[in-house]
Amino acid sequence: MPDSLDRSPLGLAQALIRCPSVTPEEGGALAWLGSVLEGAGFTVHRPRFSEVGTPDIDNLYARIGTGAPYLLFAGHTDVVPAGDTAAWRHGPFAGTVADGVLYGRGAVDMKGGIACMLAAALDYLEAAGPTFTGSLGFLITGDEEGPAVNGTVKLLEWARSRGERFDHCLLGEPTNPEHLGDMIKIGRRGSLTGKLTVHGRQGHVAYPHRAENPIPGLLRLAGALLAEPLDGGTRHFDASNLEFTTVDVGNPATNVIPAEARATFNIRFNEGWTAETLGAEIRDRLERAAGNAVRYSLDLQPSNSPAFLTEPDAFTDLVAAAIETETGRVPKLSTTGGTSDARFIKDACPVIEFGLVGETMHQTDECVAVADLNRLTAIYTRVIAAYFAAAGRASEG
Amino acid sequence: MPDSLDRSPLGLAQALIRCPSVTPEEGGALAWLGSVLEGAGFTVHRPRFSEVGTPDIDNLYARIGTGAPYLLFAGHTDVVPAGDTAAWRHGPFAGTVADGVLYGRGAVDMKGGIACMLAAALDYLEAAGPTFTGSLGFLITGDEEGPAVNGTVKLLEWARSRGERFDHCLLGEPTNPEHLGDMIKIGRRGSLTGKLTVHGRQGHVAYPHRAENPIPGLLRLAGALLAEPLDGGTRHFDASNLEFTTVDVGNPATNVIPAEARATFNIRFNEGWTAETLGAEIRDRLERAAGNAVRYSLDLQPSNSPAFLTEPDAFTDLVAAAIETETGRVPKLSTTGGTSDARFIKDACPVIEFGLVGETMHQTDECVAVADLNRLTAIYTRVIAAYFAAAGRASEG
Repeated sequence: MPDSLDRSPLGLAQALIRCPSVTPEEGGALAWLGSVLEGAGFTVHRPRFSEVGTPDIDNLYARIGTGAPYLLFAGHTDVVPAGDTAAWRHGPFAGTVADGVLYGRGAVDMKGGIACMLAAALDYLEAAGPTFTGSLGFLITGDEEGPAVNGTVKLLEWARSRGERFDHCLLGEPTNPEHLGDMIKIGRRGSLTGKLTVHGRQGHVAYPHRAENPIPGLLRLAGALLAEPLDGGTRHFDASNLEFTTVDVGNPATNVIPAEARATFNIRFNEGWTAETLGAEIRDRLERAAGNAVRYSLDLQPSNSPAFLTEPDAFTDLVAAAIETETGRVPKLSTTGGTSDARFIKDACPVIEFGLVGETMHQTDECVAVADLNRLTAIYTRVIAAYFAAAGRASEG
Repeated sequence: MPDSLDRSPLGLAQALIRCPSVTPEEGGALAWLGSVLEGAGFTVHRPRFSEVGTPDIDNLYARIGTGAPYLLFAGHTDVVPAGDTAAWRHGPFAGTVADGVLYGRGAVDMKGGIACMLAAALDYLEAAGPTFTGSLGFLITGDEEGPAVNGTVKLLEWARSRGERFDHCLLGEPTNPEHLGDMIKIGRRGSLTGKLTVHGRQGHVAYPHRAENPIPGLLRLAGALLAEPLDGGTRHFDASNLEFTTVDVGNPATNVIPAEARATFNIRFNEGWTAETLGAEIRDRLERAAGNAVRYSLDLQPSNSPAFLTEPDAFTDLVAAAIETETGRVPKLSTTGGTSDARFIKDACPVIEFGLVGETMHQTDECVAVADLNRLTAIYTRVIAAYFAAAGRASEG
């Protein structure tokens, strides 16, 4: 552990923000985190993963204790770029506090979250001393905001191959829309992207019978994909949703009928579908709409984002209770929003997500109230204490 | 007239093709044409027109005779680019004849047509000698394939300001789809281009309620423009037709809902519409389809292409009769196809169009059968002779 470490959640968050760890740069963040964890008695590993065509990525895995149960904290130290640095009120890597608010890239996504996990773990372990008989771990990647190829997926494989088995995981992504305590994520929708091309025949607009305009065919197919909802949602999931993200022809000549029209759509789908069943539904809708009238091709991109749900259980109750005690809010159990590394962790153990307020994530002036850092730390500390206390009662009972 | 001029239609066509007059280059074509016409007794003018933002353009106006009636031949010596010269069987500016076919850029569009007019005029005038009491003219531009700003429009203004008045005009554009004699053009559809933009709000695909995808709105508006035919056509015109020529969003990110979607359409419309009434219909359809649900803007481009019809009359009958005599075909009186300079000439005098077979125009290996050059010359010669003979009978009667 560094000399004169400021162990407050704010001090830890500032230290992390000051490491310029824009994906794929490690930026000193994992090295710093590793030294703090080692100082607290953790065994720290720093596996570095490579794959052709992607940057090498530093990762961190740390564990303290060898007993059961094993509670794992997960997250990432990499951040998205700061964008126009001059547009920031305070330097994106300065860690400035103004009026009780900490500014900086990663303040909420998710160096702030990691600082709270770390502060909570250090507090709990110091208080528990030798009475601690479980296992507590950190699985932290430097590749969540990037291609996510040399990050959590490989880190989990690496851990499994070493015999590491986790009982529960808490991922500290910013899950709250507006206030700390709003929302626990107990699953995520899947994501499927398709590229649709309608084929026509080029010609002069004055002679449409000699050409075949692909644009009306594209309107027809796109209309067919949007006409009926994919489903009505499930108990824990919103309805699956399809959005067209682009349509492109790129024909600058106003007197020419183009040869081809292309569109891309992305579907966020719930547990009622897999990428395969959803792909079949899309193909079916297109086939029925096209008949013999529209020549088209569909390219469904390989998806590594399935829909998943961690059925609420005693662990979820325990986290929700800690949140309610510290914030007075009853968190919503939600599966909304984008994808996260939880979609990989769910294959290793039950995983839920709770972190800071996401409102400013990826934006200029990303920031977090210092009070929220303290309260999230208090929540995480309660979670750890309740988790191992419950395990103690269970083993005694 | 150049020494040792080959006055055959083939010889004249070859001489013109060998002038590389790709718009806006004069390429020697008008200079050569002027010298031939001067040699035959025409008074030749070579006005050059300019306008900021467009290239200067050479034009030609030639007249022989001062009496009535005045028959005007019109056309252009400029040609579209040859494209990949290496792909041509024979050099695009070589004027090569192979197996009875003349190859070259402009062979049918429309140096071949000008060669036939010229050959017919020279033949007729030589045969008529001093008995010719009417007026015969040539109005030839070098800017038909380009912006058409410094061409026929200004040449007609220039002629009118000099007191020139025409009774009938025959424009020698390639009008026949397959065989010489297929088709006379007695009018042209108008052209109107519109650019439609649908405005939305950018956002993440996982949070569609925080964004506003403009693509469904564009599908709706485009569908509304295509849903109902604009009209059922008229006696001399096909139904008006709307084609979307491009749709563009240009969003490379499959997880982002775009802020804006743009489409361009072009309408070829018949005499039932003006650009103004048609624009009003388009605005009305869009307004009804958009309601309060779609935010959009429409930019209708200024149109200099109205629909027009030259009502068939004795002159049309005379041209049709000449065609039938020489080819055995009864030409269809049509208003199909793109626009031509006839849309400007119609304000000066009745104008109809008849020329070569357009099949290879603007293509690699543009070509014309030498037999067609000879037959079109025979048709034009008959037209001139019948036109002035009819005038003679009328003045005698």
